[in-house]
Amino acid sequence: MAGPRPSPAGQEALDRRFMAAALRLSRKNAGRTSTNPSVGTIIVRDDGAGSMIVGTGVTAVGGRPHAETEALTEAGELARGATAYVTLEPCAHHGRTPPCANALVNAGIARVVGAASDPDPRVSGQGYAILRSAGIEVVERVLADEASEQMAGYLIRSLRKRPEIILKLALSSDGKIGVEGEGQVAITGDISRREVYLMRAEADGILIGIGTALEDDPALTVRLPGLENRSPARIVLDRQIRLPDTSKLVSGVDRVPLYLAACLEADPQRRATLERAGVHFIGTETYGGEVALPELLEDLAALGMASVLVEGGARVAKAFLDEGLVDRIVLFGGPDAIGEEGIASPIDADHIPAGFRKLREMRFGEDSYAEWLRP
Amino acid sequence: MAGPRPSPAGQEALDRRFMAAALRLSRKNAGRTSTNPSVGTIIVRDDGAGSMIVGTGVTAVGGRPHAETEALTEAGELARGATAYVTLEPCAHHGRTPPCANALVNAGIARVVGAASDPDPRVSGQGYAILRSAGIEVVERVLADEASEQMAGYLIRSLRKRPEIILKLALSSDGKIGVEGEGQVAITGDISRREVYLMRAEADGILIGIGTALEDDPALTVRLPGLENRSPARIVLDRQIRLPDTSKLVSGVDRVPLYLAACLEADPQRRATLERAGVHFIGTETYGGEVALPELLEDLAALGMASVLVEGGARVAKAFLDEGLVDRIVLFGGPDAIGEEGIASPIDADHIPAGFRKLREMRFGEDSYAEWLRP
Repeated sequence: MAGPRPSPAGQEALDRRFMAAALRLSRKNAGRTSTNPSVGTIIVRDDGAGSMIVGTGVTAVGGRPHAETEALTEAGELARGATAYVTLEPCAHHGRTPPCANALVNAGIARVVGAASDPDPRVSGQGYAILRSAGIEVVERVLADEASEQMAGYLIRSLRKRPEIILKLALSSDGKIGVEGEGQVAITGDISRREVYLMRAEADGILIGIGTALEDDPALTVRLPGLENRSPARIVLDRQIRLPDTSKLVSGVDRVPLYLAACLEADPQRRATLERAGVHFIGTETYGGEVALPELLEDLAALGMASVLVEGGARVAKAFLDEGLVDRIVLFGGPDAIGEEGIASPIDADHIPAGFRKLREMRFGEDSYAEWLRP
Repeated sequence: MAGPRPSPAGQEALDRRFMAAALRLSRKNAGRTSTNPSVGTIIVRDDGAGSMIVGTGVTAVGGRPHAETEALTEAGELARGATAYVTLEPCAHHGRTPPCANALVNAGIARVVGAASDPDPRVSGQGYAILRSAGIEVVERVLADEASEQMAGYLIRSLRKRPEIILKLALSSDGKIGVEGEGQVAITGDISRREVYLMRAEADGILIGIGTALEDDPALTVRLPGLENRSPARIVLDRQIRLPDTSKLVSGVDRVPLYLAACLEADPQRRATLERAGVHFIGTETYGGEVALPELLEDLAALGMASVLVEGGARVAKAFLDEGLVDRIVLFGGPDAIGEEGIASPIDADHIPAGFRKLREMRFGEDSYAEWLRP
């Protein structure tokens, strides 16, 4: 590291630039790293004439190796004296391979810039502590909000023992989400539908109520070329096991897991029939005649799910909102009106609960898209 | 609670008797309570003329409701002033339904006898504290060792962030586990085979090496009437993805999940083909050319697995033993010798690693059975 160092302000701008690149990189395997978070690492050398990226890494599909290992391997000897940008605090717990914090030390990294801290109690603060005690300069919380947003599933599962809940609704121009008794109604166009498939591909689970399952008979899979294998588990709130064997959800069970959240009291014959077909059951408690959602979410987290997309209907959406269990709201808006016979949405862009802030707004063809986050 | 109380020694004997019954009861749903432990609760009244069981409960299939809820519902008003025997510390964390510790308080229980403490940081000691602060007499650690043994999977997953590892081997009378290149060799008889199916039905996963998968082409399912749906996930250590599409493991994937622990470097075409067939992949790191087992077990625990049965072959068994990752050893012994061409077992009844104690010994027809536990 010969040559002059940039000014503090210049260094800060550089750090933000490289961290933004590491965050973009980390998205590459989002939804494909099993129970590990998808992390990005970029290793940068400054020889005085300017910065040069000498190694990049992202958590491997399936969750291992971690991003740091890959980036250090690519950098080789060039890692010595370089800066590592990591979107999550490097892991500190020993298995059979050295923890990433030690790998950074051993490679001779001089400076580490981190975004999010790891809430895993075996890491929390300890990854940074290992680096500091080895004489490495550590800068924490660069683009921390952006990183937390991207890794919300992992962070919420670790801290709150439940998955991140993303509530997605498609609204007609007059704020309706469908027509009573008519099953699926096209509210948005093709581009929006593809966007929903991408959202599904990045989630660990998709959840609907039995009403929607009976009315729409949805498959809830990802139907995009190249992403057919990225369909997450489907979860249906079905206290009394009313889902028919002939539904698309059941017939697709050999490809994509299906969980029914059902009561102990539900018909044991129906349960046995569906179990034989390959359906999994999650025992649920009820509260005021409805599935006790916090308990269910705790069980989904224990099954390894870090993010669940709630796709309807109105009653389920309202239940999650009323319980304060929604972390992210995504509203698609279609161009046409449904009219008086439509089912009113429990929420619209003008009535977002307190505590949410708007994150982004887009247009997909004729449709609008908006997303709100609760930090 | 009129009438004389039993003497302290008499009370202790009674407590042990009822806890033993609660532990037997808790086995009923072992392996069927998803990520919740299978717990037993017995509620006992003493009206002076003797003890009477007024309520029993076991964690429901699927994990909820918890055992205490069921037992209290059955006891109704008779719970007031009674003693509750719980095999695990009652839960203390609030969801939508009240935690079991509060449910016991609200029902007017006078005395709680517990076996194991809950290692879940949201419960640990807090369940008992809630009871004590409500004036309930609490006796802890009655038959605690027996309870820990039964709930080993749950306790190990919570404390060590990995599943309980049960190593199962079938040995010929001359200490061989098979014949090189000959695939499956019958070493034990029908009764032992049925016992293995029961062990599988109570586990969350079965793990083998790719060598065994290629040689034996096993299905690794539970083939017992009434238990066909109790087959746990199969896991194959297959770094280079050598498992053929035509194997029984792959063709059964529509009924029972199959996970391959494979390296990032393995053939992406093979991975894609098997993923299309429904196979799941867990990214693994390697250490000295072998799968890094502690990291893999951490990932299996994060997927919700609390117990994994390791079924061979010799190399895989040795790797788990060498890493100190085995919690329980189960050896079946057949009556016949295999001879010189046999594959030697890495372990036999006379060479059990230090730290294990023999738990039980049985005979299944002509076969011997022995089980060792490491506390």
